[in-house]
Amino acid sequence: MQRMIKIILLTATIIGVTAVADMSFAQDPAAAAATEAAAAPIPAAHTTFVFNTLLFMIMGMVVMFMAAGFCMLEAGLVRSKNAATICLKNITLYSIATVMVWLIGYNVIYGVDEGGWIGTLSMWAADDSKALDTGYSASSDWFFQMVFVATAASIVSGTVAERVRLWPFFIFTALLTGLIYPIQASWEWGGGWLDSRYGFSDFAGSTLVHATGGWAALAGALALGPRRGKYGPNGQINQLRGSSLPLATLGVFILWLGWFGFNGGSQLALGTLSDAIAVSNIFVNTNMSAAMGVMTVVVLCTLLKRKIDLSMVLNGAIGGLVAITAEPLTPAVWQAALIGSVGGVIIFVTTPMLEYLRIDDVVGAIPAHLFCGMWGTIVVPVTNSDASFVGQAVGIGANAAFVFTVSLAIWFFMKIVIGIRASADEEDRGLDDSEVGAPAWPDFSGEEKIQPAE
Amino acid sequence: MQRMIKIILLTATIIGVTAVADMSFAQDPAAAAATEAAAAPIPAAHTTFVFNTLLFMIMGMVVMFMAAGFCMLEAGLVRSKNAATICLKNITLYSIATVMVWLIGYNVIYGVDEGGWIGTLSMWAADDSKALDTGYSASSDWFFQMVFVATAASIVSGTVAERVRLWPFFIFTALLTGLIYPIQASWEWGGGWLDSRYGFSDFAGSTLVHATGGWAALAGALALGPRRGKYGPNGQINQLRGSSLPLATLGVFILWLGWFGFNGGSQLALGTLSDAIAVSNIFVNTNMSAAMGVMTVVVLCTLLKRKIDLSMVLNGAIGGLVAITAEPLTPAVWQAALIGSVGGVIIFVTTPMLEYLRIDDVVGAIPAHLFCGMWGTIVVPVTNSDASFVGQAVGIGANAAFVFTVSLAIWFFMKIVIGIRASADEEDRGLDDSEVGAPAWPDFSGEEKIQPAE
Amino acid sequence: MQRMIKIILLTATIIGVTAVADMSFAQDPAAAAATEAAAAPIPAAHTTFVFNTLLFMIMGMVVMFMAAGFCMLEAGLVRSKNAATICLKNITLYSIATVMVWLIGYNVIYGVDEGGWIGTLSMWAADDSKALDTGYSASSDWFFQMVFVATAASIVSGTVAERVRLWPFFIFTALLTGLIYPIQASWEWGGGWLDSRYGFSDFAGSTLVHATGGWAALAGALALGPRRGKYGPNGQINQLRGSSLPLATLGVFILWLGWFGFNGGSQLALGTLSDAIAVSNIFVNTNMSAAMGVMTVVVLCTLLKRKIDLSMVLNGAIGGLVAITAEPLTPAVWQAALIGSVGGVIIFVTTPMLEYLRIDDVVGAIPAHLFCGMWGTIVVPVTNSDASFVGQAVGIGANAAFVFTVSLAIWFFMKIVIGIRASADEEDRGLDDSEVGAPAWPDFSGEEKIQPAE
Repeated sequence: MQRMIKIILLTATIIGVTAVADMSFAQDPAAAAATEAAAAPIPAAHTTFVFNTLLFMIMGMVVMFMAAGFCMLEAGLVRSKNAATICLKNITLYSIATVMVWLIGYNVIYGVDEGGWIGTLSMWAADDSKALDTGYSASSDWFFQMVFVATAASIVSGTVAERVRLWPFFIFTALLTGLIYPIQASWEWGGGWLDSRYGFSDFAGSTLVHATGGWAALAGALALGPRRGKYGPNGQINQLRGSSLPLATLGVFILWLGWFGFNGGSQLALGTLSDAIAVSNIFVNTNMSAAMGVMTVVVLCTLLKRKIDLSMVLNGAIGGLVAITAEPLTPAVWQAALIGSVGGVIIFVTTPMLEYLRIDDVVGAIPAHLFCGMWGTIVVPVTNSDASFVGQAVGIGANAAFVFTVSLAIWFFMKIVIGIRASADEEDRGLDDSEVGAPAWPDFSGEEKIQPAE
Repeated sequence: MQRMIKIILLTATIIGVTAVADMSFAQDPAAAAATEAAAAPIPAAHTTFVFNTLLFMIMGMVVMFMAAGFCMLEAGLVRSKNAATICLKNITLYSIATVMVWLIGYNVIYGVDEGGWIGTLSMWAADDSKALDTGYSASSDWFFQMVFVATAASIVSGTVAERVRLWPFFIFTALLTGLIYPIQASWEWGGGWLDSRYGFSDFAGSTLVHATGGWAALAGALALGPRRGKYGPNGQINQLRGSSLPLATLGVFILWLGWFGFNGGSQLALGTLSDAIAVSNIFVNTNMSAAMGVMTVVVLCTLLKRKIDLSMVLNGAIGGLVAITAEPLTPAVWQAALIGSVGGVIIFVTTPMLEYLRIDDVVGAIPAHLFCGMWGTIVVPVTNSDASFVGQAVGIGANAAFVFTVSLAIWFFMKIVIGIRASADEEDRGLDDSEVGAPAWPDFSGEEKIQPAE
Repeated sequence: MQRMIKIILLTATIIGVTAVADMSFAQDPAAAAATEAAAAPIPAAHTTFVFNTLLFMIMGMVVMFMAAGFCMLEAGLVRSKNAATICLKNITLYSIATVMVWLIGYNVIYGVDEGGWIGTLSMWAADDSKALDTGYSASSDWFFQMVFVATAASIVSGTVAERVRLWPFFIFTALLTGLIYPIQASWEWGGGWLDSRYGFSDFAGSTLVHATGGWAALAGALALGPRRGKYGPNGQINQLRGSSLPLATLGVFILWLGWFGFNGGSQLALGTLSDAIAVSNIFVNTNMSAAMGVMTVVVLCTLLKRKIDLSMVLNGAIGGLVAITAEPLTPAVWQAALIGSVGGVIIFVTTPMLEYLRIDDVVGAIPAHLFCGMWGTIVVPVTNSDASFVGQAVGIGANAAFVFTVSLAIWFFMKIVIGIRASADEEDRGLDDSEVGAPAWPDFSGEEKIQPAE
């Protein structure tokens, strides 16, 4: 009897365990029903998938809206006679980025082999056959990556404003968004050589997005030369005042808003406890860095100038935002505050420096996006032990060499072949007249108010 | 012994399976605890519910913000002497839409019988007693539907600007948002005759929202006649330039942002793998169509005019957005690009056509919302096999016949009974003076800056 | 045999149940696998956590954007000669709020003992060690609370515009955001005496945020006195017209958008059926109250004035929004409509009342935020039986006494010690000249367009 009970116990145990184990393979109807009751119709992986996809969509939307931010910032900082042209440029460059990232850009970035130098030259099409494995919808990822490319292009338009002709700018934008940005982004975000060999670390793109835009802008400014009247014959520097500081301020607020998406969305996932915590830490650091960029410029202006230059304060916010973009996750809040503060100092110091060098950067995009972008990138290893100063320097250098050289070549090639700059007369009358054929603010700028249509 | 073991095995199996099966009914405490650990306190249906409700809320917010987009677009495209009036109209029309959709609109749309022609004339109140079954909160759905109605009303205000008096416009808006829009929307989205008999397909409202707004606007333009000075006595067409192209551009960027909500939210669900993928595909197509609308107008202007007309480019974006709205899900990306591109062509061709017909559409809303809306609707069957050209034509025709006839009747009735147009003198001085009593831009438009209050 | 079967059945039952029970402790590998299949990697509590954190982030973003809304509203309602200064103030005050809420504000609010009067004077740092218990990420909560504090500070800048000097305003902002707001918020939202002793109820801050901003603004207006030229010597009241009604309107649309986040996010949770329903009900009520605020002012202006004052209509929207903020959840839709409508009446009645009292509130912030805030707070018990009129009155009174007294003391102390008001000459030339050194709209306001840089 003893033995029989042992057999029974053993048998029952095996059966019981087997029955439960069956649940995990859902072969037993009862077990399957139990599983269904517990989790149907959404297994947890689906929930994570929806969260991640939603993150890309929401954050992508606010990054898309940064196009409006750049547009307002630039429309506010150019003279009214060029404000319609800069608006036209901004809506068109976003459209060009959309088309080029679709036609070639996306697969140039992500079609790269591990450790490679460039992806494939092929058109993107949504493929969600393995979406559950990747953890997000392919289209949501494409959208999020695309708006990043558009951001880099937006940076350029501000620097070269008030003198570049429309079509040369559009051609440059197409090359920037279809090839230049994607090639260097593939090195890191596509898993190419910068990532695999040097462990370069650039969370949301201080270098890959902002310095890229900055180098392209600097090349454009050099190829174009300064606006007429900006620099006098005897080293005189003239201020060509922006037409609307309220619109410029609105632009910066929109950019600030968009940056929560820019940095927060770059966590690339939301659907787990740790991802949700990471995104919200990024929010706090991003906001803090921007605020300290503002405060630093306000204090420096108060101490060193008699008045507080609003344009520079606005750039202080952008400088703080760009600086934290390379690593918005690992810094403690006080470190984020310091990173942004140094960003503000860079704005304060380098903006007049560019003027001293007689480089004409209409909206101050080079200090904000290029210099603060490099600062943010090089400081990453201080808070993130996965990065090294050597790797960061290599990344900054490679980005600089490639983007600046290629951009300069394209601008100068176009300068020789088709011409990139409006004539002196067109520039004096304003590009709104020569390129758009309509004044931006006709009622206030002394233009005729009723004109016969063509 | 053999037999006994068989009995034991069988018994144990039954017991084991029963124990597991009990889990699904949660009658056994241990089993219930296991279920609770696995999924409590949110069953999967709750997760889906929260996702769907969140979709309505987020997307509804950005669609609500389209009211600001229309307001800026219109304030930028009217002359400064009418800019305050158009702002007043836009914030009031949104408020009227809110109140009317609550008082009668919502139940006119959704209280309709299957195959019917009109819903019930009753006030909406949130009923979430079966919310888990519907899959979303009743209030989130109401909010999302309401902002769609407001969008249709926003379309009208631009076309009839600079000459319509405030209260006739408000009365028309109340009828449009309380009855005209809801009645025709009930035919399709409420499950009425267009849906059940003709399988009409209009995903997010190219016809039901945008053409509705367009027909109502056309009726208003015909009843009002053109602005003074727009058309000269000898067939001359004058351009009455908008006061701020930067604000108009901002408006279009806001609309573009809002359209992700407009089309994406119209998936009406987010909480499953396939819904999340659908919404992000809609994002990509919506964005692509708008971008190609812009690019097409830019290229056409470059080829056929000497200059690139910013107002028309802005309308190209809207035309692309409206065109893809009838079916943003089924087209491949290249098809979305083509649909938007044709939208751009329509803007380029029909804008001067309206001027030739001496119809005065201040902001170009009729080409963008009406013509591109019809184009987007008729092309649906090319990518969506559930739709037919006959069904689409019937839908377009029914919408046209109903909305245009009723709108025209209302506008003309008001014209006779109370008058709809400002006097010639008021129009010359600007409606800001006669209707609002305050200039929109007093510091720049040569008005007195200090005036005694009443 | 009978007995043996009984034993077998009993034994098997015990074994089966034990096997299943093991699942909940995950000690048995097979059982653990089953649990994993059902719910891994996200247990339900994690899903709720992500939803709640996402709510704080999304809603926090749109509340952050309210800073842009206030900025545009105020830039549009001041004269163009002070528009750059008001922009500078708005971006700086948001930055100050960020820094102060980090340094002391947050822990003053939430470090308070139950029933206490003030929290701890210590720096905030993210602590997510118990995040799953609290149900949201610490950083997302900090961000959401911080943008509320910034909102209160934004209210002040509008009232004291066009005459207050920059640094006294910044100092006041630092004290307001670091101490004044946090101390009184700790009484209620931190669980202090107002909450525990009086059951004061202020859902999203009609009193704690808006009346706080309003009292601080009123104190500032009294300390500063009215702008030069606002009130004539014989009781004459002059209108000093705002420079851009379109920008002011844009500001209100942005605020309206942000208010969905302000009130909706104050549910503080999204991850359950009831929370999602609550947030969407709040959306509907918030929107309805604002719409009725607008409609009420439109109707009152039509009936009692000949023209419809856009500035007042804009304030009607804000008044409706502020009024519903104390309790956006419990009112039925018609009650929300009534609450907003009374808000509109308050705007219409009290705006001229302040002028009669010769208090100069440049943007009408005191009627909108203070008077409508008190109205919204006192009416809570009508729809929410957890609140009492006594408790509400105590809360309103305590907030008034503390905020107004302390603010007045600070403003007058600064007035004596450092001076708070620009000189008469600076005020006449505009603060953009004396404080910023750059005109806001140089092309239109008759300033020199090219000036030598410093």
